[in-house]
Amino acid sequence: MTETGTFPGLTNDDAEQFESALQSFINSRELPLYKMMAYHLGWVDQNGEPEASTPQDRSHGHLVLTVSKAVGGDNASAMPYAIAAELVHNFLLVHEDVQNANTERNSRPTVWWSWGPAQAINAGDGIHAMARISIFQQRQSSGPASDPRRISMALETLDNATLEVCEGEYLDISFQERAAVGVEDILNVARKHGALFGASARLGGIAAGAESEILDALTAFGTAAGTARSLNTDLKALWPNPDSERDDVQRGRLQSKKKSLATAHAIETGTPAIRRRLGEIFMKRILDPADFDVITSILEETGSRSFSENHVETLTGEAISALESGGFSGQHRATLADAVRLIVGSA
Amino acid sequence: MTETGTFPGLTNDDAEQFESALQSFINSRELPLYKMMAYHLGWVDQNGEPEASTPQDRSHGHLVLTVSKAVGGDNASAMPYAIAAELVHNFLLVHEDVQNANTERNSRPTVWWSWGPAQAINAGDGIHAMARISIFQQRQSSGPASDPRRISMALETLDNATLEVCEGEYLDISFQERAAVGVEDILNVARKHGALFGASARLGGIAAGAESEILDALTAFGTAAGTARSLNTDLKALWPNPDSERDDVQRGRLQSKKKSLATAHAIETGTPAIRRRLGEIFMKRILDPADFDVITSILEETGSRSFSENHVETLTGEAISALESGGFSGQHRATLADAVRLIVGSA
Repeated sequence: MTETGTFPGLTNDDAEQFESALQSFINSRELPLYKMMAYHLGWVDQNGEPEASTPQDRSHGHLVLTVSKAVGGDNASAMPYAIAAELVHNFLLVHEDVQNANTERNSRPTVWWSWGPAQAINAGDGIHAMARISIFQQRQSSGPASDPRRISMALETLDNATLEVCEGEYLDISFQERAAVGVEDILNVARKHGALFGASARLGGIAAGAESEILDALTAFGTAAGTARSLNTDLKALWPNPDSERDDVQRGRLQSKKKSLATAHAIETGTPAIRRRLGEIFMKRILDPADFDVITSILEETGSRSFSENHVETLTGEAISALESGGFSGQHRATLADAVRLIVGSA
Repeated sequence: MTETGTFPGLTNDDAEQFESALQSFINSRELPLYKMMAYHLGWVDQNGEPEASTPQDRSHGHLVLTVSKAVGGDNASAMPYAIAAELVHNFLLVHEDVQNANTERNSRPTVWWSWGPAQAINAGDGIHAMARISIFQQRQSSGPASDPRRISMALETLDNATLEVCEGEYLDISFQERAAVGVEDILNVARKHGALFGASARLGGIAAGAESEILDALTAFGTAAGTARSLNTDLKALWPNPDSERDDVQRGRLQSKKKSLATAHAIETGTPAIRRRLGEIFMKRILDPADFDVITSILEETGSRSFSENHVETLTGEAISALESGGFSGQHRATLADAVRLIVGSA
């Protein structure tokens, strides 16, 4: 969970600018449909009345802005792209909440839990369309981001990443009903889920008018960071902070038998006895908290927890070294390295 | 339901070209996710094996092609736009089947019924992303459609229409739980649902390099046609062809208490006794076929059926006269007028 203003390379003022631009963009539309979006984004309650809610993670949008700064761009050009990346992420969350039957997110009832699955599917579709409408606003701006070739590049970046996330999601869901899911399968899913951070970093570069070599370095950087975050999300669902309970989203993943790198490692490398114990649990239609404890103790026994933690570390290192080919200054590299750690850690 | 090759202004060869381009575009991708899309589009069975299925309605894609021809464009330039429009329509159908719990469409099990709601939501999101990826292919082509300004115009047209459909869908769903839904409310929803035909007609013009006055005439033409079709869809759900039963999609709409122009008219103009009879039915959680008969006989009694049929006629006329300002030849106007009748009638 990112507190406003704590994203590396961004001032409090940058973060507030972003939040306020995002909010104005959604509020510029009148229908109650947009109130539902505003509710999901944390600004109003279910009746559409302003509400001070828990700050939400905005790391996709913030990454666009911080990358753009590092490449010499300004906030004004990067803002519509930052909004677009953040909205794509959020449309996927609204749909994920329906898919995993999550009743709460950020300690508040989810959209489907409040308005039903039909409205939630539709609100997600609307947020998806709004994401790219944000990019068209760029046409009114000046600077490299208003070049129609850049706009079309930005849209393509975003659409390809969205499709890649859908590919990952397809696999992730299909693994729910399988026990034999391998380490490579999970890494493949995590890379696809990481694509939106790759796209966010690239969008920051596109907004700032960066050359294609830099754009490719940024994509590699963001994708590795996003992949590490995705794996870390699974680790946190299995082993939440000792001082907090699992939240509903974390329970949702475990209950629906989504596989993690740790379970894949245990299934791939475990003894027949280990596999049988895991298999028995995964044969149940839905898991309960007692099952979670059995799973986590097996995964510690097989070294699968530390295997996964090491993988997260390696990917974090890969993200940081991807910047070596981008010609960034030492200071910018340090800032972006901090951004990776925050993205991965705030999973 | 459009038979391949019967769309006004298109030859059998045009329609086959379109079907084959659409199919190649989806088949160019490897994952099983795309097999699910191919299943929905009617080319393979649930195991991904080729299947000869009932021809499906392709009127969004066909409209793009026929409009492009009427404005002097060629199929090659219009094809990616035709694919995009058809895919946006189909992503909405995949989601609608989850939202209305439709078990069958085109006499085959729906995606959610075959793979579960989570996969269906995701497959719809993937089709949505694929729609616009089709438009980026345009960059490799020549002619007016490859101009980045045209590409960006096409994408914006599509996104604005998608958002408008989502706005309509929000209202349509929220009317399920209300009895007091007025004629204007329903017309508003129908216009929003018609936006994708407006966008399809406009895309045909954009592909052919038409000027903005023609584009606006095409949008008005397509939107009126789409609005009429949306109203006619409701009429056909209430009064299916005498020689066929209601299909699952039609039953889905009625069971979920979606309101139609006819019900709104009866509620708005009916006597207190009529309103009470309708209100009693709409108070039920879910409707059954016996309720449908009561509703249709009330709506005939109040003249609401013919009120709606007249409205469909008026809108059909509006679509045709919208072409007067576009400078079309008599022959092209006649072709596009036939297209409107087919779009409305095949609802």
